[in-house]
Amino acid sequence: MDNINIKKLAKELNISTSTVSRAFNGSPDINKDTKEKILAFAREHNFLPNHYASNLRDKKSKTIAVIVPEIANDFFAQAINGIEEIARKKGFYILLYRTDDIFEKEVSFVNYLNNGKVDGIIMSVSGEASDHNYLRKLEQKNVPVVFFDRVYEDIEAAKVTTNDYDSSFAATEHLIDTGCHKIAYLAVNKSISIGKVRMQGYVDALQKHHIAFDDELVIDCSNDEKENYAILKKVLEEIKPDGIFSSVERLAFATYYVCNDIGIDIPKDLKVISFSSLHIAPLLCPPLSTITQPAFEMGSKAASLLFEELEKKGMYIQKKEHVLKSKLFIRKSSGG
Amino acid sequence: MDNINIKKLAKELNISTSTVSRAFNGSPDINKDTKEKILAFAREHNFLPNHYASNLRDKKSKTIAVIVPEIANDFFAQAINGIEEIARKKGFYILLYRTDDIFEKEVSFVNYLNNGKVDGIIMSVSGEASDHNYLRKLEQKNVPVVFFDRVYEDIEAAKVTTNDYDSSFAATEHLIDTGCHKIAYLAVNKSISIGKVRMQGYVDALQKHHIAFDDELVIDCSNDEKENYAILKKVLEEIKPDGIFSSVERLAFATYYVCNDIGIDIPKDLKVISFSSLHIAPLLCPPLSTITQPAFEMGSKAASLLFEELEKKGMYIQKKEHVLKSKLFIRKSSGG
Repeated sequence: MDNINIKKLAKELNISTSTVSRAFNGSPDINKDTKEKILAFAREHNFLPNHYASNLRDKKSKTIAVIVPEIANDFFAQAINGIEEIARKKGFYILLYRTDDIFEKEVSFVNYLNNGKVDGIIMSVSGEASDHNYLRKLEQKNVPVVFFDRVYEDIEAAKVTTNDYDSSFAATEHLIDTGCHKIAYLAVNKSISIGKVRMQGYVDALQKHHIAFDDELVIDCSNDEKENYAILKKVLEEIKPDGIFSSVERLAFATYYVCNDIGIDIPKDLKVISFSSLHIAPLLCPPLSTITQPAFEMGSKAASLLFEELEKKGMYIQKKEHVLKSKLFIRKSSGG
Repeated sequence: MDNINIKKLAKELNISTSTVSRAFNGSPDINKDTKEKILAFAREHNFLPNHYASNLRDKKSKTIAVIVPEIANDFFAQAINGIEEIARKKGFYILLYRTDDIFEKEVSFVNYLNNGKVDGIIMSVSGEASDHNYLRKLEQKNVPVVFFDRVYEDIEAAKVTTNDYDSSFAATEHLIDTGCHKIAYLAVNKSISIGKVRMQGYVDALQKHHIAFDDELVIDCSNDEKENYAILKKVLEEIKPDGIFSSVERLAFATYYVCNDIGIDIPKDLKVISFSSLHIAPLLCPPLSTITQPAFEMGSKAASLLFEELEKKGMYIQKKEHVLKSKLFIRKSSGG
């Protein structure tokens, strides 16, 4: 069925062409099961009625908004590149916004967008506030949203994440295997879902290996470099962990700086592993063990999903979570 | 003169208020010297007639375009942060575009912008083609452009650069001081002005110290990681320089990778220094000596200049080059 059209599709499914049309134009006047059957068949055969294929041409702004907590960070920079590559192919441009992890900035920017400035939004959220009505308003205006990496659980949208729980579990288990008994977990954003999931992987791996969970070893860090340095110095001098599992890259860097300054030898005295997309992790002193998310791929997947939504207006889009896999790179910092 | 207004200004300069108004509203019906005298006085006293202060409110897009060769690079990421901080204060947003150093992409994007999509443009250029008419069209449409770091010499605009010649000279001299006699210069974009200026600093420092310039030691690199690795491997194995001066950060990383793989000891066998804004340069193995440009400040300076232009429509704006200073950080990679 190379050249499928509405007529052939109707014949194939043994229904009328007008029913098929109703399925595509989002008419409420159609049985739900029939509609899903038609759209599933269409998806399977990569069929888009001309009407929908031309949807993109009708978009006026030719712009998508990308909202991220930070830019000067390898993960987000690579993800933005991934988004941009797809957008470029579609003839779209990127309106970039950085929230600095501040929820109010996110709300203010989303509200600003709510008037046709952009055709869609890709975002990695700033924090877990309970009121996400500013995002629901977008739905009413047909501005689709795709989340990546940091998502809001209560908002129905396509989401691109990684296997954070499994990665955290594996990284913690790796530190235990190398002989660590007192592993500190460095956290920010414990309240958002990604923070919870990563922490749970750590907690469960400890439990599996009969190491008691110690609240004192969960270190709450901030967005301020100097503050983090002071916090970590205190932890390394007073609590003296033998392993560090950092849930974000910059806390691993802060750990390195403290260790350099107070003479702690990595990996002899302290083993370190971190979530990080730093491409020069092998060049650090010592080379940093990382859980590396496929940042570029996550960006391009998020953009692809957004364009699917933009192109198939009126079609039933699966708003599900797409989970890509991170990779564990064991290097010298954790005794590898 | 705290509360200056047009009347006071006219009295101060002993001219009529209507002449003052003509100076501000860009009327051709005014003597050039008189106009400049008025505007200079106004600038000196930070005076903006209400009419001009309200110019920003009239801007419809509330958006500025930022065009850069790459995003996943500490220099540009920090510069974008600097631009964004100023834009945010003004209530403006950023439309980001990455050229990948490809001139055609730059032209295509600038042409796309040429219809009121943005109120102004901040760009770091992709390459030195001779025909910059696509940029001149922007002038006709009153879309101001500010260049930063990589500029076109033939386009009249505000430009924010750093003291590249002096920095290159000082870095080369530093390598000579540490005993290097055979210093390779790693280049990309030799044809754009920034490339020429950096190379000239290297050439002149050699000459000052009576070291003959050797064309074989100027290494043309590309934008492809694997290609650069191969080029540098060949250079280090066959030409055997005792010093590397890298004009862009990623070539220093490539040098580190090659040295790790073929067993060259930095700094014993080879001293390395590089232009770089990498914030974790001290954590590399060995810590990398850098010429660090004030990336964030360059971005915010460029944005401030752009908003000056946007706010003072009709006023005479000085389209000159603003040179900020880079810092030389001597670390272990060059024997520091």
